[in-house]
Amino acid sequence: MKAGVLFSGGKDSSLAAVLLSRDYAVELNTFVFGPGRILPAVERAALALGFPWHVRIFGEGLLARAMDMIRSSGYPNDAIQMVHRYALKELSTHYRVVADGTRFDDRVPMLSRDEVQSLQDTLRCSYVRPLLGFPRREVDSLVARHLQIICGETGNLENGDYEAEIREEFRARGEDAGKYFPPLHEQSLVIGMTST
Amino acid sequence: MKAGVLFSGGKDSSLAAVLLSRDYAVELNTFVFGPGRILPAVERAALALGFPWHVRIFGEGLLARAMDMIRSSGYPNDAIQMVHRYALKELSTHYRVVADGTRFDDRVPMLSRDEVQSLQDTLRCSYVRPLLGFPRREVDSLVARHLQIICGETGNLENGDYEAEIREEFRARGEDAGKYFPPLHEQSLVIGMTST
Repeated sequence: MKAGVLFSGGKDSSLAAVLLSRDYAVELNTFVFGPGRILPAVERAALALGFPWHVRIFGEGLLARAMDMIRSSGYPNDAIQMVHRYALKELSTHYRVVADGTRFDDRVPMLSRDEVQSLQDTLRCSYVRPLLGFPRREVDSLVARHLQIICGETGNLENGDYEAEIREEFRARGEDAGKYFPPLHEQSLVIGMTST
Repeated sequence: MKAGVLFSGGKDSSLAAVLLSRDYAVELNTFVFGPGRILPAVERAALALGFPWHVRIFGEGLLARAMDMIRSSGYPNDAIQMVHRYALKELSTHYRVVADGTRFDDRVPMLSRDEVQSLQDTLRCSYVRPLLGFPRREVDSLVARHLQIICGETGNLENGDYEAEIREEFRARGEDAGKYFPPLHEQSLVIGMTST
């Protein structure tokens, strides 16, 4: 059975893919807002993991909608949540099983129980979160066991999460993204698998 | 790293153990109220899975406390929840990683986010629920892939969950357990692994 995993190149989505690959034929999927966006570091991460990788493009207007939400609320959480739901919805048109790297300790993006139920019922898919039942300490230990990663802050490290592209678009429009996003957001990028 | 899994012999705790065994040295642990209680079917299930199995005995008085809670509330949920928490707590004295077969769709036993945090902080353990991120449909499909099971109702199928022993104690005291417990509670028992 195929499973389509939402993939940023970071440690959580990579670990979710590795764990899931024991029981599913995993394919990695990275969503971008702009059709021209290239993500060589994410592509290398996918290559290191050894799973097929697909770049998928969000429908036109979603980036503007996300930016409007951020401008009006003053913080990115609702917009990130909305974009994540949209990605899962899109992905469910390609796979019967969709998955992501949501951890138990995550706050955003995190679908509520009702949202998960509704997603599965309306889209007739299974939404799997392999890391949901693992506390941070165990995720860290599994990451160390399976993955080689580098860490940095958003902006210094290329990865395929939504935040980077939204931040860039704010900058391109001469707006200060810094007033919406928390100053320090630790990111990770997978550069290899460990040999175990 | 060792992980102590709460084990009833049923499909959920068995599947949790199988999934976890890819990354941890799994040991199965079945709690009983009465020191003399024997569970040959659960022992055979543990043998079929191939992991070490330990029977652990709850402290004296816990069964009476659970029965009092059930009598006073009129339903078993709070008591089952209390007993489950107690089992996790006990288990954390033996393992740094404790685990169970809680699924996303479960209502009871299900620890809240705060309870999980508190359990981990006070007992300095990791509490892992490998099935938490899997919807029922995927759990069923993984069970079919890995396990041979038989199904039945509580009372007709021996397994190591708390309900059976509590029900028996009500009966032994001449009380009707049926007025507290829902009439139909589907149970499962693992009888083998599939060959895949």
